[in-house]
Amino acid sequence: MTIRASIIGASGYGGGELARLLVGHPEVTLVHLGAESRQGEAMADLYPNLRGLTSAATGPSDAEGVARDSDVVFLALPAGKAMGLAPAMLEHTRIVDLGADFRFKDPHVYEQWYRAPHTSAGLLDEAVYGLTEFRRSEIRRARVVGNPGCYPTAALLAILPLLQSERLSAAGVIIDAKSGISGAGRGLSMDTHFAEVNENVKPYGVAGHRHTPEIEQELAVALGRPVTVTFTPHLVPMTRGILATAYLPLAGRITTEEATAMLEEAYAGEPFVRVLTEGLPQTKATTGSNFCDVAVRVDGRTGVAVAMSALDNLVKGASGQAVQNMNVMFGLPEETGLRMPGLYP
Amino acid sequence: MTIRASIIGASGYGGGELARLLVGHPEVTLVHLGAESRQGEAMADLYPNLRGLTSAATGPSDAEGVARDSDVVFLALPAGKAMGLAPAMLEHTRIVDLGADFRFKDPHVYEQWYRAPHTSAGLLDEAVYGLTEFRRSEIRRARVVGNPGCYPTAALLAILPLLQSERLSAAGVIIDAKSGISGAGRGLSMDTHFAEVNENVKPYGVAGHRHTPEIEQELAVALGRPVTVTFTPHLVPMTRGILATAYLPLAGRITTEEATAMLEEAYAGEPFVRVLTEGLPQTKATTGSNFCDVAVRVDGRTGVAVAMSALDNLVKGASGQAVQNMNVMFGLPEETGLRMPGLYP
Amino acid sequence: MTIRASIIGASGYGGGELARLLVGHPEVTLVHLGAESRQGEAMADLYPNLRGLTSAATGPSDAEGVARDSDVVFLALPAGKAMGLAPAMLEHTRIVDLGADFRFKDPHVYEQWYRAPHTSAGLLDEAVYGLTEFRRSEIRRARVVGNPGCYPTAALLAILPLLQSERLSAAGVIIDAKSGISGAGRGLSMDTHFAEVNENVKPYGVAGHRHTPEIEQELAVALGRPVTVTFTPHLVPMTRGILATAYLPLAGRITTEEATAMLEEAYAGEPFVRVLTEGLPQTKATTGSNFCDVAVRVDGRTGVAVAMSALDNLVKGASGQAVQNMNVMFGLPEETGLRMPGLYP
Amino acid sequence: MTIRASIIGASGYGGGELARLLVGHPEVTLVHLGAESRQGEAMADLYPNLRGLTSAATGPSDAEGVARDSDVVFLALPAGKAMGLAPAMLEHTRIVDLGADFRFKDPHVYEQWYRAPHTSAGLLDEAVYGLTEFRRSEIRRARVVGNPGCYPTAALLAILPLLQSERLSAAGVIIDAKSGISGAGRGLSMDTHFAEVNENVKPYGVAGHRHTPEIEQELAVALGRPVTVTFTPHLVPMTRGILATAYLPLAGRITTEEATAMLEEAYAGEPFVRVLTEGLPQTKATTGSNFCDVAVRVDGRTGVAVAMSALDNLVKGASGQAVQNMNVMFGLPEETGLRMPGLYP
Repeated sequence: MTIRASIIGASGYGGGELARLLVGHPEVTLVHLGAESRQGEAMADLYPNLRGLTSAATGPSDAEGVARDSDVVFLALPAGKAMGLAPAMLEHTRIVDLGADFRFKDPHVYEQWYRAPHTSAGLLDEAVYGLTEFRRSEIRRARVVGNPGCYPTAALLAILPLLQSERLSAAGVIIDAKSGISGAGRGLSMDTHFAEVNENVKPYGVAGHRHTPEIEQELAVALGRPVTVTFTPHLVPMTRGILATAYLPLAGRITTEEATAMLEEAYAGEPFVRVLTEGLPQTKATTGSNFCDVAVRVDGRTGVAVAMSALDNLVKGASGQAVQNMNVMFGLPEETGLRMPGLYP
Repeated sequence: MTIRASIIGASGYGGGELARLLVGHPEVTLVHLGAESRQGEAMADLYPNLRGLTSAATGPSDAEGVARDSDVVFLALPAGKAMGLAPAMLEHTRIVDLGADFRFKDPHVYEQWYRAPHTSAGLLDEAVYGLTEFRRSEIRRARVVGNPGCYPTAALLAILPLLQSERLSAAGVIIDAKSGISGAGRGLSMDTHFAEVNENVKPYGVAGHRHTPEIEQELAVALGRPVTVTFTPHLVPMTRGILATAYLPLAGRITTEEATAMLEEAYAGEPFVRVLTEGLPQTKATTGSNFCDVAVRVDGRTGVAVAMSALDNLVKGASGQAVQNMNVMFGLPEETGLRMPGLYP
Repeated sequence: MTIRASIIGASGYGGGELARLLVGHPEVTLVHLGAESRQGEAMADLYPNLRGLTSAATGPSDAEGVARDSDVVFLALPAGKAMGLAPAMLEHTRIVDLGADFRFKDPHVYEQWYRAPHTSAGLLDEAVYGLTEFRRSEIRRARVVGNPGCYPTAALLAILPLLQSERLSAAGVIIDAKSGISGAGRGLSMDTHFAEVNENVKPYGVAGHRHTPEIEQELAVALGRPVTVTFTPHLVPMTRGILATAYLPLAGRITTEEATAMLEEAYAGEPFVRVLTEGLPQTKATTGSNFCDVAVRVDGRTGVAVAMSALDNLVKGASGQAVQNMNVMFGLPEETGLRMPGLYP
Repeated sequence: MTIRASIIGASGYGGGELARLLVGHPEVTLVHLGAESRQGEAMADLYPNLRGLTSAATGPSDAEGVARDSDVVFLALPAGKAMGLAPAMLEHTRIVDLGADFRFKDPHVYEQWYRAPHTSAGLLDEAVYGLTEFRRSEIRRARVVGNPGCYPTAALLAILPLLQSERLSAAGVIIDAKSGISGAGRGLSMDTHFAEVNENVKPYGVAGHRHTPEIEQELAVALGRPVTVTFTPHLVPMTRGILATAYLPLAGRITTEEATAMLEEAYAGEPFVRVLTEGLPQTKATTGSNFCDVAVRVDGRTGVAVAMSALDNLVKGASGQAVQNMNVMFGLPEETGLRMPGLYP
């Protein structure tokens, strides 16, 4: 089987990483690489790691034309762009959207956090939140997958299995996350200037980051009731990686071993989630790979479970999970094209 | 006035940073630089930044001899060493101990967390916890100052003023801290190998880091009742800096402005704590300086106050605060020798 | 075809990178992973990127036993170890040695630069210097390949084709190279301590680095006469990558275009050397991949050609080239298991 | 004495570093901080390290008004701006220009390398090239100092004393320099994006960097004949620091000790140049300080002397040297306000 796949938004980091993964995917032919602002450039000029591996060049972002030639189109665009393109594209193709447009069931949640109207609210009902490990069967049939944000992927994989237990409380969950700079995208700003962010750690988006409602939505789905979470992201001076540290109040007695067993049970057989029984997650163990490492420690003294996860924000946190979802959508073994170790060191 | 000051443990990062600060201190003469393992080396060979500024060489760590020649001795030694040296030294000098030996009032707390007997428990009563901003008058008269740990300094400066309010709760306080690698000391280990920690973020000491009881002791003193805190440190790939993010449950209604006003009131007139009303703390704003930047944001939606602080772990988190305490002990203006901006970028 | 491959010295960075590449190699079964100092540990504990991809554990470094079970053994050992093991191993297997023991034709050159006797000088005649692009036919038949050093690989790929021209002079060649810290190995020293090497650039081994004679030997072979080169390596604060900048005096008139054409001609059809006609080599374009990027600029004003190359010191500079050589030795397509793009960013 | 000093171009890194140094200078009052694009902002908002140390805000860049209020004005502007402002300013004040406009004696050299006409050529004759150690007496009387570029400062301090000897040749000098990213300024570009330059080393400006003619001019002045140099700068992933490695062909027999003695003689009594007799220069030894470390090794085998230097590009390579020149111009001890150690680690 050969899947004809295209990317719209190929010049950003999400798009570049999709190209890296799809160039080596044994069941994919890359058809179109749309890049509005860098049209006509060799992909290898935009992403020099691809030199010698593809002679593809970027073309126009004519979404409907691209859709017509493709079995699946990956959209790697700024928030608010995908919703305009999707309806016409769906006449011809299936979509994995790496942005936020199709992550929410409730358009008002989108509108509240993204401060813009949602113009394709009619698609939200069928769109599937693409956290592969928890939505596999829906993804298989989906026309539109709303690929999760990088922080929500890390946070949800760490805590979803634990909140199934009544001994851990979803009331008062705190998530403190640390991300490499590539999460800010390839655009230029003081927040991505090397001299400003090197040797620097800083919080941002305190009490207002847009990934918060995604996490809350998925916890609410899992628990069957509304949940709020306090989420604080931080920028740390590295290129790739997210480390999420989540604090869950204990509602009963539970040991580290019992909590770990819950993670192990939830992820038994999962190809890309590794439960650590010794040692703690570290981003470097996942760099360049589609793995997410998770672990939990119960602090019985204070009555808090500390759940931790590490992943590469550009792979499992974005493009790798998107390819994983494509594999599911097209009935391929889920690891196809993704079973490579990260770089260490 | 010239203070005759000495350092025992001059070859580690704490000692090196003390030397950097004391070489430029207008009221200090450096008398002895004890360094057991690197005896007889020029300080400028151990710390090449000092070349051209001092011709001092390290000598033996004969504590009593050093004490006899000094008005104050800084001890920058592994845990458990200072308690053996202090009693004899105090016949001749005053002590600022950068280690943990004199931070606790209750020797059992030390023994429980450091898993070793405390052999100078008799001194704990008079030793003063050297968080300058909160213990100034006791420090002035102290013979022994137990200089605070780097994490407790950052955490306590962020949250102590807030917990004075009944609208913020000390029950369930969570502190998530991120530290540069120099905090691990100059010793060699896989945790300080560049290739292992560069491009890597990882938690460590979850539910068991030794700085936890320091924070709890000081909160208990301030609140007049026992307090437990959940504290998780992380290593981030930078040399200097700590960013602490503390989560305090709201016990009543409070706004960001009101919480910020509490910080401003607490630190009015303080030379080294800067309350940010706009923007958030970032470690880079403090690199190389004795400043600690603090800020708070109230997340009314979730009922949590997020208090943040940034400092240089080797300066305000260790040697700078030690010099600040020396200034207090000898009646000097507190900023003497410490009023320099950090490096930015 | 399945090649039974083993590694002796699996715990160091060369060994870990070999494991990363061989785990994903479609024609290889990993048989033994010898690691003297870390025997019996799961490879995934030594290299957490391998978790979920291999359950292999390290075993004893019984060289002859390993050899008996293997079609090829990779030796990733400190200088001087391989020469003792190789003779007995060659009864049973073929060897790719990542160290220096089999790189030199003349044992006296080894002895002079490595200050130790060469105890297997009898093998040097048949051992092949494994710079794949220039020794392919000899490598195919070799029992012992002396895999090139990281710096010589970078330097030689940049300058060998240029020195074929009489218009560029081999007299007075200067090579200034910049390497990431992983080149110093996984061992602990002040030179690998994060806080000492981060935010730091420094030269080392000036006028005496052991990679110098390798470069000189290969230039002499190519030119048919003795050559000396001035080689200065530098450590830069990154994990992976070497950038070599070579300065060749002009002996006649030549343009940048003509010099570039020489590189293009030399590397036409080479899968792993990319000649840049626009832009300059940068290490990041090669991170994690087996590519070496080369370019040249002629400074007509000063009469010097500047030849530059970039590669990943652990891949094309060590383990990747070793696997490339294995592919050649066993008649596999040279790109087998190595045709992956690097990580960018 | 109090010098009234002003900065025009206070928002860039050169200006910010001037502010850091002048805020702590005991003989200076900062009068105006001109910043065209960021007018009216608190300096502490632009440079958060200055918070608590200055309440100064940026004002308009009305050069003549600024000049009227100032004893000296530092210009930290893009190339080509200072030449337009200087003539009118000189009616009222003295100028230290951190840009290139007043570095060249011959306006045609400027015009050739900067590809723009020089509109104040009449001032070039009296302007003094501000390499303090070699132009002290002229600087003392200068109305306009053309403060040297960062690379030329590093390169010239390493090689000028050596070229006084006939045993070292100025023909064929090669300078290979490595700079931190702050050298590229605070402006935004792909070359300063963290994710693009972190974990990356790359050359740029090969055979054409604008600092080349500065080096050549000063060598020609010293030697009394024209000289060309091959100069290649590289970007390395750190914030501050330049390491220059210069290769000088031997024209006679000379030992490392003899060459080192030449450096020692040249810099005897110099407060800011440290000649290393053991060990090699490393940028980290100079970070944040005005020191330049130099050393030389003679490779007798190849007939090349390798001269090396390290400095902080923003201090001795720019703003520190500018303040040093101000001290000279106003008859202050040269170390005033500059005698602080760098940060290590």
